[in-house]
Amino acid sequence: MKGSNHLEYTAEIICVGTELLLGSVVNTDAMDVSKALSELGINVYYHTVVGDNPNRLLSILEIAKNRSDIIITTGGLGPTFDDLTKKIVAKSFEKKLVLYEDQLSKIRSHFDRMGWRMCANNESQAWLPEGCTVLENDWGTAPGCAFEVDGKHVIMLPGPPRECEPMVRERMTPYLRKLSDAVIVSHRLHIFGMGESTVEDKIRALAQNMENPTLAPYAKQGEVMLRVTGKAETRDGAEALTLPIVLRVKELLGSVVYGVDTTSLAFATMELLFKSGKTLATAESCTGGLLSKLITDVPGASKSFIGGVCAYSNEAKEKLLNIPHLSIEKHGAVSEKIAAEMARAAAEVFHTDIGIGITGFAGPDTAEGKTGTVYISLYCDGEHETKKIFNPRSRDMVRCSAAQNALNMLRLKLLKQ
Amino acid sequence: MKGSNHLEYTAEIICVGTELLLGSVVNTDAMDVSKALSELGINVYYHTVVGDNPNRLLSILEIAKNRSDIIITTGGLGPTFDDLTKKIVAKSFEKKLVLYEDQLSKIRSHFDRMGWRMCANNESQAWLPEGCTVLENDWGTAPGCAFEVDGKHVIMLPGPPRECEPMVRERMTPYLRKLSDAVIVSHRLHIFGMGESTVEDKIRALAQNMENPTLAPYAKQGEVMLRVTGKAETRDGAEALTLPIVLRVKELLGSVVYGVDTTSLAFATMELLFKSGKTLATAESCTGGLLSKLITDVPGASKSFIGGVCAYSNEAKEKLLNIPHLSIEKHGAVSEKIAAEMARAAAEVFHTDIGIGITGFAGPDTAEGKTGTVYISLYCDGEHETKKIFNPRSRDMVRCSAAQNALNMLRLKLLKQ
Repeated sequence: MKGSNHLEYTAEIICVGTELLLGSVVNTDAMDVSKALSELGINVYYHTVVGDNPNRLLSILEIAKNRSDIIITTGGLGPTFDDLTKKIVAKSFEKKLVLYEDQLSKIRSHFDRMGWRMCANNESQAWLPEGCTVLENDWGTAPGCAFEVDGKHVIMLPGPPRECEPMVRERMTPYLRKLSDAVIVSHRLHIFGMGESTVEDKIRALAQNMENPTLAPYAKQGEVMLRVTGKAETRDGAEALTLPIVLRVKELLGSVVYGVDTTSLAFATMELLFKSGKTLATAESCTGGLLSKLITDVPGASKSFIGGVCAYSNEAKEKLLNIPHLSIEKHGAVSEKIAAEMARAAAEVFHTDIGIGITGFAGPDTAEGKTGTVYISLYCDGEHETKKIFNPRSRDMVRCSAAQNALNMLRLKLLKQ
Repeated sequence: MKGSNHLEYTAEIICVGTELLLGSVVNTDAMDVSKALSELGINVYYHTVVGDNPNRLLSILEIAKNRSDIIITTGGLGPTFDDLTKKIVAKSFEKKLVLYEDQLSKIRSHFDRMGWRMCANNESQAWLPEGCTVLENDWGTAPGCAFEVDGKHVIMLPGPPRECEPMVRERMTPYLRKLSDAVIVSHRLHIFGMGESTVEDKIRALAQNMENPTLAPYAKQGEVMLRVTGKAETRDGAEALTLPIVLRVKELLGSVVYGVDTTSLAFATMELLFKSGKTLATAESCTGGLLSKLITDVPGASKSFIGGVCAYSNEAKEKLLNIPHLSIEKHGAVSEKIAAEMARAAAEVFHTDIGIGITGFAGPDTAEGKTGTVYISLYCDGEHETKKIFNPRSRDMVRCSAAQNALNMLRLKLLKQ
């Protein structure tokens, strides 16, 4: 390791698992570990995936040792793989595996609690490299561990994503933080409704020549995220570096920033809705329930969300939303007028303050040039606001973009009030 | 390469992209390529991810050359990365990049059509290794390519997943098939409602000592998939090997097999519904629209799916589904009785043949021990069938499992008719 400066460390990630090589699952472990390392300011130069094969894993470890300061492995700690990763890592770094009695009794009591029979394979999970730091696994049975040899740090994490993800956050990150005298703090600004290049233009002057903190954009499906990372001797010091930048970016970008360190646009919007005390209902056509699904992803949604109608057919629009047949015939089911009528009908039928209506062509079998046209209407306290979007992409993307845009309209409306 | 037998080839995948190392995106390209290679019977021993860095990419290629017959790269072909991958691969394999005029005019006409201005960077996409097989990219502007040097095959594919995925299917797979005299055919049996270990038990005798074809199980979120892969000199020969196994497995497992080579449980179920000529409506509480979302993921759903109510509150259950307040008070909103009333109400309100009702506790804030309890009711031609499931996991998983189980109940009902 190179003194106390995380920013100089280089790391690589080795994921062990034949199922990854078969393409049966996507490698979320590599992403989770990478993201956490990037937030710590540690450079990741390689990911490698290797199967449950001792010789190939050993050769990969030899390569990794020669080019990286920190090696993080995921997978191969469970009983079914015969603890391949621990054995081979121990061999590569000339460490002895010893029985950790406290881990053994922890595993044993877990099995007792579940009423399962414990076998020798399970016991092997309590064998760990001598002198290592045990990384307790509260989300599964196989503990992780960390050790240092000749300035090289090795961290082993379990493979199942639902264990790996919390282990990264609760075990790996604190362990790596302690290696350094410096404290790294990072904040994420979440942006909807402005493209990556426009965001970059707006922050260019601010981001120029920044070294500590740093400001970097990331694009993800329909959204942009800006990460501000600062490093100082104390947490307060690091916050004092990053927070002014967070505030400055919010000033520069305005209301397209839907949250700082938040989960999703739906969560940010629902938080505003909870605060407003208003109630909401939806009427969806082309999104087929996706909007209400996103809304109810948020725990506690029932406080403000009363219900929705998925009016997929014209029949449903007429029967459940009382939209006149003639109106649909006159304007067409996909029109500004019908979106507005759906929004108002949702609020009326469910007796809510706010109604959202969505109607559009999601494809793929709609007429040429029409796929991707969606009307979204927001009815709030007797007033209407309707927006047309056009995004001629796949059925999935059209639906997703429509639902996200609807959430964003609601968010902006609530912000103004 | 080792003669005409795919099953002896080894391949590795190199993904080029700093965004992967930052953890901003998950590596779906590696999964897509792996899956396709596995279906061709080609062994994949390694994935490597490397950033947009010439020296590190070069060192990775040198390692790969010495251990694999086929090297597949993804990413680094676009204009923003300055065609890093092509330059470095060409250097590593001592190939010259030359201008492909037909590719240049294709790119040019694309830019004209979109009304964009073409710059030098875009032109560089038409420079490819001399003598290569161009892999036309109909999903983006950067073409892929393939060539052979000293028995080593190299294939370069674009990085954006929406380009990579079709390029794998439509370009890489046909190219690799041609390398071999043998034809590989594989079929996927999709299973819902039976655990992986039970499936394994049931097929053990059949799968034992199988070499060609092979039969292998894969577990994925709540489902199991069995892949049958056969190899012969002709497609007919390969089909003659695999089809009897497909039929035998279907016999052994019965109706838990929801499809062969199908997209999803929703697609398989909707196909049966289309054939039945019946109409469907839904009433969802805890799933909040997820079921109708899955149904309307299927293009043409509107033929049979009339609409749904997301009755997230008791109010909505009363108002839109006409469920008596007293009934909810007496039985509780999460009960067999209310699920059944919701199913019937859905059919009545939307005038459909079939109604599905779902009510349950998705958590996380429900009373201890209740999270994960869901009642699903299917009302079809005047008859009820209600099922209780208990799956105490995360909010997402409870909701997903409830919606999938609802689809499966409908599928089994339609099968019986």
